[in-house]
Formats: sequence, C-alpha cells, structure tokens
Amino acid sequence: MQKSFDSNRFRQALGAFTTGVTIVTTVDATGKPVGVTANSFNSVSLAPPMVLWSLARTSTNIGAFLAARHFAVHILASDQQALATRFSQKGAERFAGLRVGKGIDGVALLDGCAARFECKTAFQYEGGDHVIFVGEVLNFEHCEHEPLVFKRGRFALAVGKTPPPSGAAASLAAAADGAFGEDFLLYLLGRAYHQIYHRMKPEITRRTLGDAEYLALTLLGVRDGRTIDELDALLAYTGTRITHRVAERLTELGYVECAEADARRLSLTEAGRRAVVELLAVAEAASTDAEQSLDPSESLVLRQLLAKIVEASNPGIPHPWQP
Amino acid sequence: MQKSFDSNRFRQALGAFTTGVTIVTTVDATGKPVGVTANSFNSVSLAPPMVLWSLARTSTNIGAFLAARHFAVHILASDQQALATRFSQKGAERFAGLRVGKGIDGVALLDGCAARFECKTAFQYEGGDHVIFVGEVLNFEHCEHEPLVFKRGRFALAVGKTPPPSGAAASLAAAADGAFGEDFLLYLLGRAYHQIYHRMKPEITRRTLGDAEYLALTLLGVRDGRTIDELDALLAYTGTRITHRVAERLTELGYVECAEADARRLSLTEAGRRAVVELLAVAEAASTDAEQSLDPSESLVLRQLLAKIVEASNPGIPHPWQP
Repeated sequence: MQKSFDSNRFRQALGAFTTGVTIVTTVDATGKPVGVTANSFNSVSLAPPMVLWSLARTSTNIGAFLAARHFAVHILASDQQALATRFSQKGAERFAGLRVGKGIDGVALLDGCAARFECKTAFQYEGGDHVIFVGEVLNFEHCEHEPLVFKRGRFALAVGKTPPPSGAAASLAAAADGAFGEDFLLYLLGRAYHQIYHRMKPEITRRTLGDAEYLALTLLGVRDGRTIDELDALLAYTGTRITHRVAERLTELGYVECAEADARRLSLTEAGRRAVVELLAVAEAASTDAEQSLDPSESLVLRQLLAKIVEASNPGIPHPWQP
Repeated sequence: MQKSFDSNRFRQALGAFTTGVTIVTTVDATGKPVGVTANSFNSVSLAPPMVLWSLARTSTNIGAFLAARHFAVHILASDQQALATRFSQKGAERFAGLRVGKGIDGVALLDGCAARFECKTAFQYEGGDHVIFVGEVLNFEHCEHEPLVFKRGRFALAVGKTPPPSGAAASLAAAADGAFGEDFLLYLLGRAYHQIYHRMKPEITRRTLGDAEYLALTLLGVRDGRTIDELDALLAYTGTRITHRVAERLTELGYVECAEADARRLSLTEAGRRAVVELLAVAEAASTDAEQSLDPSESLVLRQLLAKIVEASNPGIPHPWQP
C-alpha cells in the first residue's frame, strides 16, 4: 500500500472500483439532444425509486442538465463500447447516425442498452467540482444484454466468480504435492480439448478416418487446394503428420481428388465437402454441450483468453485462415 | 425490453449496472467499530477529492454514520468475498477475528483490500429511503489486489475486453464460410494445448520418452503405485493408450519399478520422481510463457472457465486426484 495525496494516484485508486458504463441524456432548451458518458452512476433508493450520477461543473453540457426537468440513464451493453467512447469525446457529433427516440419531456432515448431509466430531476447537490444529480425513476426498461464494464481505465466484461475449492477438493489438490495441480493450465487445456474431441470420435471412426485424416479435412474446409506439405506444416505442432498415406486414404474414401501434376495438391470432392460440414456440425454440438454451464459473457471471455494464449505460444505457425 | 414498474424488476434493472464492492466503516459514540457492505459507492470530485455512498435509513448502523465525522471506504479485493457477505448479514459479529486498525478519529480500518479511502463527512443528503454520504478524502491507500465485482446479484471478476476483430482478421474469419471459424472453441483449445505441449516436446524427446510415457509419468507423480490398467483408463479419453510396452520402457529408463506380483503396479524410482519434477518445471515454464499477456484476473478466470468445460464434457473419467 502506498500513502500519499496526488491527483493521478487518487484517480488510480478510484479505478480499483469497477463500474458499469452509462450514457445520460436529456434535451436542451432548443430541443437538441444532449448526452454524456458517465460511470459515476449508482442506485440510491427503492421507494421512491431513485438513482444518482454526477457531472463535472466544467462539462459543456452542465447547463443543459442543470436546466433539465428530466433525464434518461442508459446502462450500456458490452457491444456499445464505441458509443461510450463517442459520448466522452469533445466535439464529436454524438447523436449522428443513431436512432434516437423521444421519452418524457422529449428526452433523447438510445436503443440496444442493457437497461434504461427515465428520471425526473429530484435533487441537484453540491459535490466539489461535480454536481450530483438525483433522479426519481418514472419509467425503466431492462433486457438481458451483457453489460459493458469499466475497470482501471479500460473496458471490460464481468464474469461470475466461482468460490475457491473447499473441503475435499482443496485437500486433494494440496495432496498433489510436487506434482501438477488441478489448476495446471496445460492439464486443463488438454483435458478440455481431448474430452470434447473424444465426443466426436465415434463419428470420425464411423467414417473410418483417423486423427490425421480428420485434421486434413477440416483444414481443406477452411481453404481448399493445399498441398500435402502445406497441410503437414500447418499441423506439425499437433504432433500429427500429414503424409502421402493420409492423402491416399482420403482419395480412397472419395473425399479428395489429388492432382499428381501439381505437387499433390488436394481438392475436396462434393462428398468431401459434405463430410467436412457434417463433422464440423458434430464438433460444434460437442463444443456447445461443453459450454452449457457458461453464460454468453463467459463464452466470449473464454475465446478471448484462449486467443491470447494461442498468440503467445505460437511457434511461428501461420493461421490456417491466412491466404 | 419490458416496461413496467415493479420493485423487484427495478432491482433487477439496476443489477445491469456492474459495480465493485466496498465495506464502509466508522466508530460509534462508545468507540465500537461499525461497518457495512455497500456497492452504492462512487467517485464524485477530484478537487477537492470526494467520494459518495448511500445507506438505507432503516439500517441499524444509520445512527453511527449520521453522527460520524469520519468514515473509511474499503474497496474489496477478489479474495474478500466472505468479508462482503459477513458485513451484509444481520446480527453477524462483523469484526470478530479481524485485524482492525485505527484511522483518523479512531475509524476502524481493514486490511488486504484493493483500495481504502479515509474521509471526513462533507455532506449528508436526502435520497429517498437512503441517506447519501459525501466524504472528502483525507487519506488513501491503493494496491494491486484484483478487485471484487458485483454483477446481477452475484460476485464476479472483471476481465479486460478485447475489441472485436476488424479489417483483415474479420474478413478472413468470414471467408472461412461453412468451415470452422477462428473462434471455434475446439480449434482454440486444441491449438492452445498443442502449442504449449509442442514447447515441451524437446525435453520429452531428449529423455527418449513418447507421449504415453510422459502422460503415465505425470499421473504417477500425482499418485504413485497405480496399475497399467488404471493409468490406461485415466488416459483413454486422450486417445493415448498405456500398454505393457509403456511400462517396460519406463522400467528400462530406470524411472519406475514394476511389481509383477501386484497386477503390474508401477512405482516411481528416485530418478523417476526427479524426472517428473523436471518435466513439470518445463511444462510450467511453457504455460507461464503462454500466459504472459494475461493479467492475474484473466489467468484466474481462464482456469475457472476451463474447469467448467472439463466438468461439462467429462465422459465419466474420475479426476486423477481422486483417491
């Protein structure tokens, strides 16, 4: 812990408090919509229903909000990050191109947010260099959009926290002394991967394919006409080799045509393309099943974190999507 | 979106606004420490530095806070969930067993939080069924502990958001029409797993081990004295089989002793145990490397989400840590 009083450090310390992100809107005296991004929002009272937020006295919009009898608070959804940025930038045409509704008293209303509160200005309180606006909520809407989060100056997503393992699980983990633990990353990755793949295995086996044939097919599904050597280079990191034998097997099954003249370039046949689609459907179903206890934000975050791991551990393999 | 006015629904709509979690403390007239959990905290002013929070008029502690000239706000860290629960329960001995410091005016101070603000009561404002307390910050401390988050009535962790892929990456993903995309879960898992394992491969090869021998060794590291059949059953989901040949190879290398009399139960030798420790150190280094761009909360969340995937996709394999 560091003790001191410094404006930047104070700001950093406040950043330890994670918040959602809102846009607060109203209309000015000329009927023009006005809006600002604020994360200083919070609930206050249930009966009467009240919320509050604060705005800097130096804001160009302070006059409009001080004069406003009504305002609306929009809790932004995770896909509204660009909107949050736009409504915090000086000089931006904030409402340009947006579908703007009209609420009580003509207050500008935005769509697609996680929640929206239409308020009557109840109190305006002094708060140092800010004004605290307390609104009585007259009307609200709410939908299941994943909310956008602000943490330490960056946009974020909030993911439900699992309590630490207790009792039996914890003691078992502790018993694995000097060995890899249950939270060992490589173990978790391997187990998750192999278990999902294991559920696809019957379909792969039914088609008398092996791992190499399956992997080669999926890569040809991403881009057709690769050579055996290209496929082999793309998959070397898996330990599975794509050999001429693999190409022969896929040809025997009628899934690919192999042009000898062209460095053994493989092309999917109609049956091969159908097989790829069907195999991927099975993989998709197995993945969806495995994700059944994850909510949408968790699924998104998992992919995002895995993509970072893939990036950081890449031994120089081109992405199969690269031309 | 649903329109209506209903107290429960209002609460749910407010829950769309994610927040950190704080405990606010003071001392009562008799010098006894008082504290409450609150997520209605927010920053207000930079100059003078001010923060606010609100407390229900019906709270048993309202008297102490109304009378207090000072209070302290503690932004809780991710490992302080139990404390948050304790300070929100009626009748709990809230400070029992805690190391309680004394701040300005004798205000109770707690340790281990993400940030702490010692405040002078600046204003007390009406806010419906709550009182809004505005404090001028006299002193603050801040450390890098991961903050606890509250989202839709549940404890959570916030994870930095990566902007959606744009330009080239997005169009490549879209081009992979009818094939698995770059955010296909099984692909990401497989690629992350194989890439990290690939970095261990030289060490495994140097010891003239194969995948099967390596996996068998790590499982014996978790619990020694398993039979070949037990190891094989535990690893069947990976597609790698543990056969008598694997046991023979490990015996030749001097890593295990195999008791024929006892259903071919395998025990690590001293050299075998050393090999396990060394191999796991290499795996640990490769995993840490792969996680280099993840912050601590991201690493925690990744493990938590993978554990859910492992759980949901488990085809009935016992955890290797189970007795």
